[in-house]
Amino acid sequence: MQALPLAGLTGALFSTPAMRETFSARACVQRMLDFEAALARAQARTGVIPSACAAPIAAACDAAHIDTEQLAQAAALAGNLAIPLVRQLTAVVAATDPEAARFVHWGATSQDAIDTGLVLQMRDALDLIDTDLASLSSALAALASRHRDTVMAGRTWMQHALPVSFGLKAAGWLDGVQRHRERLAALRPRLLVLQFGGAAGTLASLGGKGLAVAQALADELGLGLPAMPWHGQRDSLAEAAAVLGMLTGSLGKMARDIALLTQTEVGEAAEPAAEGKGGSSTMPHKQNPVGCAAVLAAAARVPALVSTMLSAMVQEHERALGGWQAEWDSLPDIVLLAAGALRQATTMAEGLTVNPQRMRANLDTTGGLIMAEAVALALGARLGRLQAHELVEAACRRAVQSGRPLREVLREDSAVAAQLSPQQIDSLLEPTGYLGQSGAFIDRVLAAQPPRTLRE
Amino acid sequence: MQALPLAGLTGALFSTPAMRETFSARACVQRMLDFEAALARAQARTGVIPSACAAPIAAACDAAHIDTEQLAQAAALAGNLAIPLVRQLTAVVAATDPEAARFVHWGATSQDAIDTGLVLQMRDALDLIDTDLASLSSALAALASRHRDTVMAGRTWMQHALPVSFGLKAAGWLDGVQRHRERLAALRPRLLVLQFGGAAGTLASLGGKGLAVAQALADELGLGLPAMPWHGQRDSLAEAAAVLGMLTGSLGKMARDIALLTQTEVGEAAEPAAEGKGGSSTMPHKQNPVGCAAVLAAAARVPALVSTMLSAMVQEHERALGGWQAEWDSLPDIVLLAAGALRQATTMAEGLTVNPQRMRANLDTTGGLIMAEAVALALGARLGRLQAHELVEAACRRAVQSGRPLREVLREDSAVAAQLSPQQIDSLLEPTGYLGQSGAFIDRVLAAQPPRTLRE
Amino acid sequence: MQALPLAGLTGALFSTPAMRETFSARACVQRMLDFEAALARAQARTGVIPSACAAPIAAACDAAHIDTEQLAQAAALAGNLAIPLVRQLTAVVAATDPEAARFVHWGATSQDAIDTGLVLQMRDALDLIDTDLASLSSALAALASRHRDTVMAGRTWMQHALPVSFGLKAAGWLDGVQRHRERLAALRPRLLVLQFGGAAGTLASLGGKGLAVAQALADELGLGLPAMPWHGQRDSLAEAAAVLGMLTGSLGKMARDIALLTQTEVGEAAEPAAEGKGGSSTMPHKQNPVGCAAVLAAAARVPALVSTMLSAMVQEHERALGGWQAEWDSLPDIVLLAAGALRQATTMAEGLTVNPQRMRANLDTTGGLIMAEAVALALGARLGRLQAHELVEAACRRAVQSGRPLREVLREDSAVAAQLSPQQIDSLLEPTGYLGQSGAFIDRVLAAQPPRTLRE
Amino acid sequence: MQALPLAGLTGALFSTPAMRETFSARACVQRMLDFEAALARAQARTGVIPSACAAPIAAACDAAHIDTEQLAQAAALAGNLAIPLVRQLTAVVAATDPEAARFVHWGATSQDAIDTGLVLQMRDALDLIDTDLASLSSALAALASRHRDTVMAGRTWMQHALPVSFGLKAAGWLDGVQRHRERLAALRPRLLVLQFGGAAGTLASLGGKGLAVAQALADELGLGLPAMPWHGQRDSLAEAAAVLGMLTGSLGKMARDIALLTQTEVGEAAEPAAEGKGGSSTMPHKQNPVGCAAVLAAAARVPALVSTMLSAMVQEHERALGGWQAEWDSLPDIVLLAAGALRQATTMAEGLTVNPQRMRANLDTTGGLIMAEAVALALGARLGRLQAHELVEAACRRAVQSGRPLREVLREDSAVAAQLSPQQIDSLLEPTGYLGQSGAFIDRVLAAQPPRTLRE
Repeated sequence: MQALPLAGLTGALFSTPAMRETFSARACVQRMLDFEAALARAQARTGVIPSACAAPIAAACDAAHIDTEQLAQAAALAGNLAIPLVRQLTAVVAATDPEAARFVHWGATSQDAIDTGLVLQMRDALDLIDTDLASLSSALAALASRHRDTVMAGRTWMQHALPVSFGLKAAGWLDGVQRHRERLAALRPRLLVLQFGGAAGTLASLGGKGLAVAQALADELGLGLPAMPWHGQRDSLAEAAAVLGMLTGSLGKMARDIALLTQTEVGEAAEPAAEGKGGSSTMPHKQNPVGCAAVLAAAARVPALVSTMLSAMVQEHERALGGWQAEWDSLPDIVLLAAGALRQATTMAEGLTVNPQRMRANLDTTGGLIMAEAVALALGARLGRLQAHELVEAACRRAVQSGRPLREVLREDSAVAAQLSPQQIDSLLEPTGYLGQSGAFIDRVLAAQPPRTLRE
Repeated sequence: MQALPLAGLTGALFSTPAMRETFSARACVQRMLDFEAALARAQARTGVIPSACAAPIAAACDAAHIDTEQLAQAAALAGNLAIPLVRQLTAVVAATDPEAARFVHWGATSQDAIDTGLVLQMRDALDLIDTDLASLSSALAALASRHRDTVMAGRTWMQHALPVSFGLKAAGWLDGVQRHRERLAALRPRLLVLQFGGAAGTLASLGGKGLAVAQALADELGLGLPAMPWHGQRDSLAEAAAVLGMLTGSLGKMARDIALLTQTEVGEAAEPAAEGKGGSSTMPHKQNPVGCAAVLAAAARVPALVSTMLSAMVQEHERALGGWQAEWDSLPDIVLLAAGALRQATTMAEGLTVNPQRMRANLDTTGGLIMAEAVALALGARLGRLQAHELVEAACRRAVQSGRPLREVLREDSAVAAQLSPQQIDSLLEPTGYLGQSGAFIDRVLAAQPPRTLRE
Repeated sequence: MQALPLAGLTGALFSTPAMRETFSARACVQRMLDFEAALARAQARTGVIPSACAAPIAAACDAAHIDTEQLAQAAALAGNLAIPLVRQLTAVVAATDPEAARFVHWGATSQDAIDTGLVLQMRDALDLIDTDLASLSSALAALASRHRDTVMAGRTWMQHALPVSFGLKAAGWLDGVQRHRERLAALRPRLLVLQFGGAAGTLASLGGKGLAVAQALADELGLGLPAMPWHGQRDSLAEAAAVLGMLTGSLGKMARDIALLTQTEVGEAAEPAAEGKGGSSTMPHKQNPVGCAAVLAAAARVPALVSTMLSAMVQEHERALGGWQAEWDSLPDIVLLAAGALRQATTMAEGLTVNPQRMRANLDTTGGLIMAEAVALALGARLGRLQAHELVEAACRRAVQSGRPLREVLREDSAVAAQLSPQQIDSLLEPTGYLGQSGAFIDRVLAAQPPRTLRE
Repeated sequence: MQALPLAGLTGALFSTPAMRETFSARACVQRMLDFEAALARAQARTGVIPSACAAPIAAACDAAHIDTEQLAQAAALAGNLAIPLVRQLTAVVAATDPEAARFVHWGATSQDAIDTGLVLQMRDALDLIDTDLASLSSALAALASRHRDTVMAGRTWMQHALPVSFGLKAAGWLDGVQRHRERLAALRPRLLVLQFGGAAGTLASLGGKGLAVAQALADELGLGLPAMPWHGQRDSLAEAAAVLGMLTGSLGKMARDIALLTQTEVGEAAEPAAEGKGGSSTMPHKQNPVGCAAVLAAAARVPALVSTMLSAMVQEHERALGGWQAEWDSLPDIVLLAAGALRQATTMAEGLTVNPQRMRANLDTTGGLIMAEAVALALGARLGRLQAHELVEAACRRAVQSGRPLREVLREDSAVAAQLSPQQIDSLLEPTGYLGQSGAFIDRVLAAQPPRTLRE
């Protein structure tokens, strides 16, 4: 039983149209009706209900026949959506075929319809996410390749550290995304399974035919048949939530990086511009990084929603009181936010403005300080790591305090000059020669194959 | 910028109609327009804009003039609702008074309108919650009084411990509710304040009149004037979230208690019945405790949403990138869930079926074991606490193992018989005489005055 | 840099001795030293440092040489543990071999040592958890087999629903555990990888030999070599947290079930007794379900800690400010709590007292109401589902209100009697014949193979 | 029952010595013993136990007599600390006065000792926090005063917006801190109350003297007497957690601001330097903002811990199974992290290096773009807000694209030149004249009185 989460005024910022449709009231109802239709067909096929009853039931299983307003009101009393939905559906069937109406929802429990409907929605959702992940991977791979040699400041603790390439940064974003694609592929066979157990999970009302119906029903819906019903075992839903939480976290990391690069004083990157995007109501010169904000907001929201899904796993006996109901809006919210963040991140990756000149200028702004490690290492090979470190640390301090380039300070330091010529110092201070394995790392990430998914 | 959270199919289960209206798209827009109207009036009053401009602007500030669908789409690009809203509003004003249209939103920033609008919604929400809290308090006070002497098993670690009265249990629920009313009253002066700072929180665009406009605007809206704008200081919103989180936690505790009392084997209480409420789709004998489920689901969801509000407090500089946006749906979700849980709890408290016979029968079911403490204490006064404890513990074990009443086992125990006569043992095993200060505690809770609120 | 989380007074309740040792200060230091020793060997092997230097460095890499008190104090200033640790280690090496001391921690950054040390601790932790999971699986499989036909009340919404077998309940617990074993096996190749990138993740200080050193270092430690360093990409740590969170959730579900079965009024199961376990300080008859409490407390704590790991993924650039540091105690806390819950759950599963007589007695306590579905279905085949449902619902209501067995009420109902003979009614009301596919489901769960792990 | 949370290797970074002592194993034991000593005195005073027994019991209530290692082991079986503690205490008393030993822990339950001990620890903790909050307030007030006119870029969405003063930024930090002091003062009377109810909260074992003992006991300990025991009503503990969560959030906001100001490209502020603080293991020029990292890590961790305290409120009946136990380490962790963050923030505020020259230089870096609003407003008074906004937005775009100062672009724009003279443009572009109410806001914040606390 999913609501219309995020469907309001901010929906367009924090989700995508396709995903809002996937979790719309209409789709929620339709997916439960898909279960009911498949159930009738499976039971006709296995001889549990008269074969003539399947078609009328299946024909009635169209959300267009359902009064969702009445459904919502009745659900508040009934405690779930399936009870009033089955009532409405039965009435629709009865209008044309009273005999068939007797066999609507036969042997099933509310949670069978609700959970299987949710699984079907999740399959749609994972397909949409897979598509966007492929686009994001391509965009990031292109950035990693294109900027293989675009030198910029590597930053640790939000301070200049050593030079890196922008391609390496993009490869890092991509690396995480590839792992998420693996996780999503591994999740599918656990998540995309039928829920069908009847009132207490035994299929008792179907006599000896329970398992046969279950298998036929799973086949009808293209879902796996689990070892047993999982009304109280919610680990695969929690896993879906968690994997999407990890994905959103990685996207948040990318957005944080871009937001920092976009700062007025840094100016190394900018979100793609669009007509009407990110302007300020009062400051005409502003271009707000709206995409970053949306992704970062999602990354601030999803972890807590995941914790709800984990907390809610503590469910009582054969069907829970509270924990199950806590999932209903939480998982859709997670999917919508993750998908919205993914779309925003993909748009950013595809259209990111990168400013290599500014990257180089910022790198040079510290007068060589960022190359201190290179000097320290060269000295370290002669004097030992610790002594070299202290020597260069002192030189850096003098350079900062006097506002002079490190180059000059080093040349004038007799202990340094005893080991390194001015030319050696110059060479050590050139960042483009100090990118180490950046290129090799990029190649390794690009060489990693995208995972096989169940869809192929 | 609030969405229509929980407005979907489960909305009726997890919230209330009045609160859904308070956080509807329409109300969200109207509250921002209330800010714009009051701003125009305040600026006319303080001579910042021509006095003739206030009325046309104020007249246009009606949500009926706003195309919310267009608003939602434009907000996705603009990054917030206020920018396109001001654009639409300006067009509405311009249609009748182009001169006045020049002064729409004068000197304000988007966040001024969005935050103040949210504060106005929160005032409406707190009023609704206060009303329901008064009803809940009355209902719980009535239960506490009525069942002052209704003896039942007190349970610790989910095991029978000692007798208590049902009135004491209800007083415990009431006690927490009274503290929440205090907290909500204390929250109001911090929360119900104007947001008005302009683009960077300095009101620079209003020249020397900024503070005067702010005071007039606060007066127009009936809000407090804070020491300074709070675009980046979100503690009072977080406090509102946290206090509602505490309230929901207490309601969850009450629902957990009722759910446990309602179990088939316990049967000491039942939710009020209602036509169509809590039936099962497959099991005709079931009466599902739907109210408890809704409250417990809220209690499982709200804590995580509160953690989002706390995490989101880490906001950058004068207006945040991500943290602010993370609040937009989180706080409304918290309010809706808390209010929904409150309504469900109030309905339960007002109509709770209490079964004193079953309470007494369950108390007696352990053959006197629950009175073991009374015996141990009487013995303890003679033999010392530890020795008496061990003596009675052994007797209990024998009673459990043999399936015989504790009374008989104690009578036959020579070490016990040396200290207590059979009559003394009988008297010690009677639960009604062992309620201690239950009545006094109930009286103390009932005597506590409800808090003064700003509304009175 | 891990602390001594949960090492205090409650440690013995909430974790296990082996896991506390795995995350002790000593082990934390030793695992970082293992990295430093392997680094020296790998660099000697690849010709980066003089081959004579490796042995003295490796010999010094023993936690016994480290003053952890000084380390903790210095770490507070340095901001992490590795800086002062390398300083101490260098001094130890220098005392015997000043030349070798020059090459301690060569080319590495603090986070290389800290993260790789953590990965090594996590490998130890996963081994411990795998062992306990195997024990738990065996115990649950034994329960599922032994109680294949032990009939009991299935409960939904905490109300009697239909009969199930206790074996089916145990199979449900087992089913989730098997999936967690799969997830843990899949996690290993992503998690158990080297961290080695130097100051900004480029290995620049090693010139062209960076990748060769990295491969040799990974081999030394028995870890995988990732595509690139992951200083800012924390998804695999978050995955470890999340999978352990899912495991803890499933254990919490099992503990909640057992706690409910253990209630005084239910009495269908009891935790294994142990000398001194679960007694009350004041109530000699009490046997508190201490194991359930410990598991449920873990299940209440871990989800929030997982959300911290997910939130913390939003890390800045090449090394984070805040997010990385937030992981340091959070992940060890998660592992300790999950492992503690797992041990408690295993102990419970291995020694659980099951009371089939009480299960049957409770099943019968509702006078046949729990078999209402069977009657409704039999009638439904004749009258249609909805009409039969309403008929039986009314009969149940009359039975409850009059306190009479459902059997009698049904016999006296003319609409029922028109369809079912008294013998048919009797047969429909017998629970042992209404377990449906319980046995088949148990067999399917038992037949599922345990996952292959990397260890085998 | 509190552990030694955060007592490990990172304790010195994330907490303070005084707070670690407050939540040490020793202090935890001592505070429970303080309860036991006061209980004996109160019961002697009210004639419940022989008056001669109080002194021997009180004398034995010294943590030095307790074997904490044995305590921890026994607690794992007993399920809580109080049971084995009372056992040890009784043995200590019995060694000198067997008669008195009979009256140890008389009429109390484990949770009475544990909760009251925790309340006493919380009183100590709040005192420490109040002291640091006063220091932080003073330091922030000094920054706000000193930098009343230090002009800098106000930044929204992490982009330059309009000029502000650094004093206004500091005043914003202070403003939130003042509200937290109010909240902490309001919390004290709710939190600092006795827990005393006996086995099921009725004080039944004390006959008619229960309330008199409770009052005397509260007096002994200097705590309030609550309306009734609160074993299952945990709202005030949750409130303490939440208020500390809000405080940590505000400190996180301050640390995020400082970290952003400290970036290499921004350079407007720096943490106070200290010998050995924040150096890099490989990069000699680095000064890592260690204090910011510690505060931000706390701000990432505490929200989730607060959510655990809120989730844990759903406690069963008269004493919980799981929820209570989940509090034991969570609340101490929150206090330690909040106090550690507070100390770090105070140190930063007291020694912050502020660079006004760099602030002004950064402000000028955008060639006047940051003053665009001033121009837009001046034009808006003549042309209407929207038209002026679009005119200036276009000018800004041209300035950015051409890399020329806004001043020149505006002068050349005929639509602008028709309204504003070159001198007017120059004047509008000067930031120092555009601080609006910054000074007045600072004054208002400074004028706010610190709250009265219960301590005075």
